[in-house]
Amino acid sequence: MMDEQKKGKAVSRLNRIEGQIRGIRRMVEEDRYCMDILAQTRSVASALRAVEDLIMENHMNTCLAHAMQSSDPGEKQQKIQEVMDVLGQMRKYG
Amino acid sequence: MMDEQKKGKAVSRLNRIEGQIRGIRRMVEEDRYCMDILAQTRSVASALRAVEDLIMENHMNTCLAHAMQSSDPGEKQQKIQEVMDVLGQMRKYG
Amino acid sequence: MMDEQKKGKAVSRLNRIEGQIRGIRRMVEEDRYCMDILAQTRSVASALRAVEDLIMENHMNTCLAHAMQSSDPGEKQQKIQEVMDVLGQMRKYG
Amino acid sequence: MMDEQKKGKAVSRLNRIEGQIRGIRRMVEEDRYCMDILAQTRSVASALRAVEDLIMENHMNTCLAHAMQSSDPGEKQQKIQEVMDVLGQMRKYG
Repeated sequence: MMDEQKKGKAVSRLNRIEGQIRGIRRMVEEDRYCMDILAQTRSVASALRAVEDLIMENHMNTCLAHAMQSSDPGEKQQKIQEVMDVLGQMRKYG
Repeated sequence: MMDEQKKGKAVSRLNRIEGQIRGIRRMVEEDRYCMDILAQTRSVASALRAVEDLIMENHMNTCLAHAMQSSDPGEKQQKIQEVMDVLGQMRKYG
Repeated sequence: MMDEQKKGKAVSRLNRIEGQIRGIRRMVEEDRYCMDILAQTRSVASALRAVEDLIMENHMNTCLAHAMQSSDPGEKQQKIQEVMDVLGQMRKYG
Repeated sequence: MMDEQKKGKAVSRLNRIEGQIRGIRRMVEEDRYCMDILAQTRSVASALRAVEDLIMENHMNTCLAHAMQSSDPGEKQQKIQEVMDVLGQMRKYG
């Protein structure tokens, strides 16, 4: 569904996020300053969002674009509803 | 700074998030449906937020409470500004 | 662009929001408790979001759907980029 | 609770937001382009957030600071919980 270049980008970002999470756990274990830990969790939230933007844009360019060309109005409506639902979740937790 | 019980809770949540991130990477590699991947990234965003709430509440109960009892108005102001800055970042990326 | 029913819904919600804003201004002027004022501003943020969801869903069902059926890849890409940009703004300020 | 200068700032911002809401209603009635309407609602969301930051910072500097100096641990805990609850609402709708 995603081309190899975008997939590679998403995978390498997820690898970096995994490393960041391990770093945050270490900070908690070592009693580091709360505000410094929160700066790191915010950095993960921002990185996660970049991955989501990549996936969402890809979805619109492929699946959603395909559904829009379909002659089935039910399929169109369902695909738009899916995007609206994810959008609602994105606004809920950043 | 955090008591052992809260620290243990934060660490075990971070471990679970690390596993979720690995699961998401696998989903990307296996070309899973975009909307299913986004449901998982949203679940991570929500779990990350629970960790942040734990840390923020602890910060208010310890550091911020301590600064508020200080007689130095500059220290009070600085600690409040720190919380406002993190709050701004939290609203920016969920 | 919007059908009359949706337009009426959006207009009546905006009227209610306008009244809520006036109520919040009064609360500020009357020195009401900060947390009570913030509960009201949060209610406006939630109502504003409902209006945005209405407009966004309409946009996807009309403009975006139309662009997706176009044979011009540049137009498709531009319309998707517009939605991604608004999505970015939505995540920035709820 | 707020000093006159901050109160004046909050009131004048709320007046501007009220005008913006009326402008958005007109845009809906005049069938303006969805993306242009959403740019305006985003501007309101950002302005609303600035008002909230003003109120929140004031709250921390007055009420919360006062509670922190109290010798009653129940009162401290209650005031922190209030801030955490509003924070949760802020992250939910920007």
